[in-house]
Amino acid sequence: MAQAARRVQQWAARHNLGGTGGAAKLVLGLIIVVVLLSAILTPLNNRSGAGARLRPPLATLATEKFYNAHHAPIGAFASFTLGYKGASGGLGLELAGPANQNVYVMLDACDGSRLDALPFFPIDSGGGDDGFFSQMGNALGERVSSRVVAYPDEAISRTLRADSDTWRAGDLTFRILSPVREVPDPSSAAATDAALEQALVPAVLVELTVDNSACDTPRRAVFGFQGSDLSAGGRRMDEALLGRGVAGVAHGLSYGLATDAPGALAAQGFALRDVLGDAALENRTFALGNHVVLVARAPPRAVTTFRYAVAFYRGGRATAGLDASYYYTRFFSSLESVAQYALDHFDELRAASLAADALLERSSLSANQQFSLAQAIRSYYGSTQLLLASNKPLWVVNEGEYRMMNTFDLTVDQLFFELRMNPWTVRNVLDTFARRYSYTDEVVFPPGEGDAAKTYPGGLSFAHDMGVANAFTPAGRGSYEQSGLRGLFSFMTHEQLVNWVLCATAYVHATADGPWLDAHTETLQNALQSLLNRDHPDPAKRDGLMSLDSTRCAGGDEITTYDSLDTSLGRARGNVYLGGKTWAAYVALEHVFFSNGMEEQAALARGQADKAAATMTAAFNAAGPGGHLPAVLGTGGSASAIIPAIEGLAFPKHCGAEAALDPRGRYKEYLAALKSHLTAVLRPGVCLFRDGGWKLSSTSDNSWLSKIYISQHVARAVLGFPSNDAAAAAADAAHAGWLLHPRESYWAWSDQQLAGVAIGSRYYPRGVTSILWLDEAGAQGQGVTMG
Amino acid sequence: MAQAARRVQQWAARHNLGGTGGAAKLVLGLIIVVVLLSAILTPLNNRSGAGARLRPPLATLATEKFYNAHHAPIGAFASFTLGYKGASGGLGLELAGPANQNVYVMLDACDGSRLDALPFFPIDSGGGDDGFFSQMGNALGERVSSRVVAYPDEAISRTLRADSDTWRAGDLTFRILSPVREVPDPSSAAATDAALEQALVPAVLVELTVDNSACDTPRRAVFGFQGSDLSAGGRRMDEALLGRGVAGVAHGLSYGLATDAPGALAAQGFALRDVLGDAALENRTFALGNHVVLVARAPPRAVTTFRYAVAFYRGGRATAGLDASYYYTRFFSSLESVAQYALDHFDELRAASLAADALLERSSLSANQQFSLAQAIRSYYGSTQLLLASNKPLWVVNEGEYRMMNTFDLTVDQLFFELRMNPWTVRNVLDTFARRYSYTDEVVFPPGEGDAAKTYPGGLSFAHDMGVANAFTPAGRGSYEQSGLRGLFSFMTHEQLVNWVLCATAYVHATADGPWLDAHTETLQNALQSLLNRDHPDPAKRDGLMSLDSTRCAGGDEITTYDSLDTSLGRARGNVYLGGKTWAAYVALEHVFFSNGMEEQAALARGQADKAAATMTAAFNAAGPGGHLPAVLGTGGSASAIIPAIEGLAFPKHCGAEAALDPRGRYKEYLAALKSHLTAVLRPGVCLFRDGGWKLSSTSDNSWLSKIYISQHVARAVLGFPSNDAAAAAADAAHAGWLLHPRESYWAWSDQQLAGVAIGSRYYPRGVTSILWLDEAGAQGQGVTMG
Repeated sequence: MAQAARRVQQWAARHNLGGTGGAAKLVLGLIIVVVLLSAILTPLNNRSGAGARLRPPLATLATEKFYNAHHAPIGAFASFTLGYKGASGGLGLELAGPANQNVYVMLDACDGSRLDALPFFPIDSGGGDDGFFSQMGNALGERVSSRVVAYPDEAISRTLRADSDTWRAGDLTFRILSPVREVPDPSSAAATDAALEQALVPAVLVELTVDNSACDTPRRAVFGFQGSDLSAGGRRMDEALLGRGVAGVAHGLSYGLATDAPGALAAQGFALRDVLGDAALENRTFALGNHVVLVARAPPRAVTTFRYAVAFYRGGRATAGLDASYYYTRFFSSLESVAQYALDHFDELRAASLAADALLERSSLSANQQFSLAQAIRSYYGSTQLLLASNKPLWVVNEGEYRMMNTFDLTVDQLFFELRMNPWTVRNVLDTFARRYSYTDEVVFPPGEGDAAKTYPGGLSFAHDMGVANAFTPAGRGSYEQSGLRGLFSFMTHEQLVNWVLCATAYVHATADGPWLDAHTETLQNALQSLLNRDHPDPAKRDGLMSLDSTRCAGGDEITTYDSLDTSLGRARGNVYLGGKTWAAYVALEHVFFSNGMEEQAALARGQADKAAATMTAAFNAAGPGGHLPAVLGTGGSASAIIPAIEGLAFPKHCGAEAALDPRGRYKEYLAALKSHLTAVLRPGVCLFRDGGWKLSSTSDNSWLSKIYISQHVARAVLGFPSNDAAAAAADAAHAGWLLHPRESYWAWSDQQLAGVAIGSRYYPRGVTSILWLDEAGAQGQGVTMG
Repeated sequence: MAQAARRVQQWAARHNLGGTGGAAKLVLGLIIVVVLLSAILTPLNNRSGAGARLRPPLATLATEKFYNAHHAPIGAFASFTLGYKGASGGLGLELAGPANQNVYVMLDACDGSRLDALPFFPIDSGGGDDGFFSQMGNALGERVSSRVVAYPDEAISRTLRADSDTWRAGDLTFRILSPVREVPDPSSAAATDAALEQALVPAVLVELTVDNSACDTPRRAVFGFQGSDLSAGGRRMDEALLGRGVAGVAHGLSYGLATDAPGALAAQGFALRDVLGDAALENRTFALGNHVVLVARAPPRAVTTFRYAVAFYRGGRATAGLDASYYYTRFFSSLESVAQYALDHFDELRAASLAADALLERSSLSANQQFSLAQAIRSYYGSTQLLLASNKPLWVVNEGEYRMMNTFDLTVDQLFFELRMNPWTVRNVLDTFARRYSYTDEVVFPPGEGDAAKTYPGGLSFAHDMGVANAFTPAGRGSYEQSGLRGLFSFMTHEQLVNWVLCATAYVHATADGPWLDAHTETLQNALQSLLNRDHPDPAKRDGLMSLDSTRCAGGDEITTYDSLDTSLGRARGNVYLGGKTWAAYVALEHVFFSNGMEEQAALARGQADKAAATMTAAFNAAGPGGHLPAVLGTGGSASAIIPAIEGLAFPKHCGAEAALDPRGRYKEYLAALKSHLTAVLRPGVCLFRDGGWKLSSTSDNSWLSKIYISQHVARAVLGFPSNDAAAAAADAAHAGWLLHPRESYWAWSDQQLAGVAIGSRYYPRGVTSILWLDEAGAQGQGVTMG
């Protein structure tokens, strides 16, 4: 318990990036609750024997509908987040979490006695007129004339897909459409400005349909919000910048709504009462009010659909450390111009969105898988940011609630999605890492192994990230890594080196981009040499795995991306998760060097791949029948059972080296060992939670969905595990259930789940690893490719 | 009580501009407390007979030192606010109140056992290491190595002047210097870019002196903060943009600190412990941390002063509705360039600041007056904003916590300060009102007087303001005025017309700007005609005061700037406050027309001035011996006693018509009546609070400091009231005491004081009316002019 609490305190440090005091304390408080819960749950999970009956997930798609989802443009670091009850969503730009704004979606009752509202702001419908606005955070006046009543939960239905999110309640249908589409390569001559403009317009669409066919009077449909930036205020959009017949409301220069609904009023007030009550029409545009709404009027005896653009805009310089603006500022000069464009191109944008939905529906994914993938894609896009620096495109994926920029150990996981959608973004990130965020180090043996005082040549590697919260760090250093540490916040030198190799070789394989490969052949050679140097200075003593730490650690230990999980996955040296990815890097290097006619380097890489496979196979075999590959080999290692031992198997196919996965091929023993390993560990009490969810490490309740998704794919697509048995279904249901947690689903898609409860890496982009599921036989059989 | 509560609810509506729910509720809660307090205090104030012993103010300069003060550049809508305990100040840009950030000002104890800190963040020094950071809103770790202890209150001294704010505690002296200086007219050929750059640099200076003469070890001096913008994070300034040897920390692109202290470290961490404890040096620049500090090292056995720039920056487009950027972006391309400039020009900027201080000190103002004036000037500058629109300068003063832009009834009060410092800003605002925010209306008689259904020609007037929170309203309309109302938020058509006349004629008198007068002679003629039309459509029935309301009111009543005080000052029609200013406008028009050879118009204006004076003199005389001029004349008027009946007398001298103030001249009866009026009302229970403070209306406890300052000046400089008797001293002490209120002094300078407790118009620019005090005999005798 004490250890768990301390570990969680370290977690809290990671949570608190940029947080304020109160928030940090809240987080700490929640975490302590979670630790206590975990202390109760852990015995259930860890101690129950194999074959214990699965516990169904607490939350399911059938029972939960009020969870947040991003509705995000591509590359705008913006999200219209909605779905969790109360003021829990709203229009967020560059935020680490939901904007926590009131969002108003309302419809007059047919008899005009009240307004029915979706529950996205605090509504106290119980107390008559007094209760009407008392929860709305506004001063009260005397001009109350209508009541707002929340639709009952049971009257509300929701359908979430990758690209549409549809709410139905009474006569109201409220649908948000967001883009899932390829972004053309801006540096390609083939990419027209028109295509770029359409892919990058920083807006999402809304359709609000009123079924007024049974009603004899017009009814008002209301869509609006209350902004939250302290340095700005509510306003109506500038009519001079909008087209004829378009009305808009905004908060500052950064976000707002517009509609072309005929005769719609852009209204504004201190309170909803002031704009929806009986105030004179001219007083409904009271510029001091921070509650802004668009009021459209649905005619009687008809079904009418109104169209809206939810727009975002950040003009001018957007970043520090490296001067960049949003790429979309090439096309749009103001929030109004964004909104107008989205309305003008509504039909095309809408059709593109719904096409993406259809692709997902045609896949053979289960409902739980579709839900997880849809949430993951949404959260990913909310973190994406296409910038323009020195007149060149600069692609950034921000790290969810942490907002680190292009965290490399996320890039390598998002790789599969990006190669499918827009591989040039992978190239762009690799170029930025190579140009600005690479470094050369030396390496040392850990204490007790070799001469700890002596340094050896290391070589090329890459920083963990490129900065945080729109502030680029200086060249050669990211924001995360610190020296002298043995856990969180230490360096990931070896891991990021491997990540560059995997991303680069996968990019080359996906695109056949010869010129880029030529430009980076030397980088790949340097990478190979750097990998060798980190194995052992004496070639004869190399075993394919990492054995020396970077001098940047200054006496500390290098860590892996799983830094915060536990020692079974945290330490890099001798780690079989990193070992598997290192093997994959060697395999990929062999392929690319061989294809390039560099046979000597190819042989060197192949030799290292062989050694890595042999080392890990031997370690597995040493565990004896029914045993598993220990998590960390060597002195001070860990005997834990970890699922990510198999993670590296995800890469060879994408790097053009699918032959390495042939169960009768060169690495058949290693593959067989990993299959046996997974078979041994994938059972309750070891690497399965009681709800059937996957537990990445036998010694930690902290399990990461993005990584689970990869390993699920590897298990099925590489190791031949069944994709449609009860265990697979239970796992998918459990994983979806974690995202539907009644409290933590506020964070939309979250990665780190402590016994199924999100505790970190929330509001996070990494879940698009689930795109790999579309590569599996069932999905492939239907010929599905997205984008 | 019920009425008071309702009035206060209306107040709350005004408070809640842009506020969030919680804040609004808090405000409402506070107001209710204030109303209750007021209910208790009111009998004491109102019922005590004449001659009752004065109650000394609760808070005095001798007892209070922890109040907030702005430290603001000119024209940047920015403030480094500091002084109230706790996280109550910080670096605010475009905010409606203090930024509520932790501000760190600390010095190592000589023995290195602890850091002593000024109390501008929550410090719990009681609990040893555990208590050290527990109040700082950060996750705890294990690397605690030093303790922070707050300096005891009694060890801290503070000296606030207009231009410097100096804190002394132990061996630490922390002084903030901010500009009080003329801004050259950017459209004048004589204004060099260098002079503009220096006047407008969006930075204030800090000197931190360490007296280490008795100590044998170096000691760290720490200055830093924790930023609060949700879309940004802490960062170190970009070294590539700073000069050699300069270190800086920032939050996003918008604000930060830099120093040229030799060897200073720009440090950053999750918690102060991480940067001030024993972490490795390279880990003290942890880019994920939101706590940013500059750490300088004072050598032993020496007194050392370190210099800092506190810099602000908003690049690109800054406003909606009308596309404008900050004027300073002509000179500065980044936050770093601002900070570097301020450090490079530290000596000149410092000297200019201290020169302004010296001017105030040489005046004959009392300590209480100096304090009030200093706070007022600071809050004014924090609200100023010089923009660049269509390549032309655009001057805006934001309305404190309400952030309305160029509220015209504030402009006319800030006039006296601006004419002294930079009269071109008055011209600039007048031009913007004339060009974009003027309108032409018709007028109607109120119900029961004349034919209420009939409209008559009205004429030229001006909107209340130009927008709010950086969003300009469309041409011809401000953000505030609404139709159909009889109080708050109604139109101020007549008042703003008078305000344009007074500002324009005062500007012409101060500058002898003939070309501008020529360009606006027609405007002034239109203004005269509009005034006449609002008096009576039948010239024979005119009495010099306003009798008809604008049709913009749509059945409501026009209001005055005192909208929220009570009916004695709220209604415009027949109001003797507005009557006095209308008289002054006619007097000023007579002067300007006569000087311009337009004798017919001059005579018309003079005739109206005569009628206004006669009407009000007659009303005074009708009250009988010892009586007072009733606040609002005519049907539905008010018999209250109001001090602002004399306010209009402040203008003739500034408009070139000082002859009108000759006690033996043309208006001698009016002047005598006002002198008798003031004598009659200026006593406890009528227009004095029990603490000696001035109570603007006998029927309201809501009294406004900016307006009190004007009337104090008129009483002494025009009506010959003593400036150095006990009553005058008590009033000044009371007024200073209100600003020092233990809770409300969080808001720096506030205008609306309910029985001495700030309830609105907080963080407000209007108090610079106190500059008029420097015109009085005592001050003039020493030949003081500022700027």
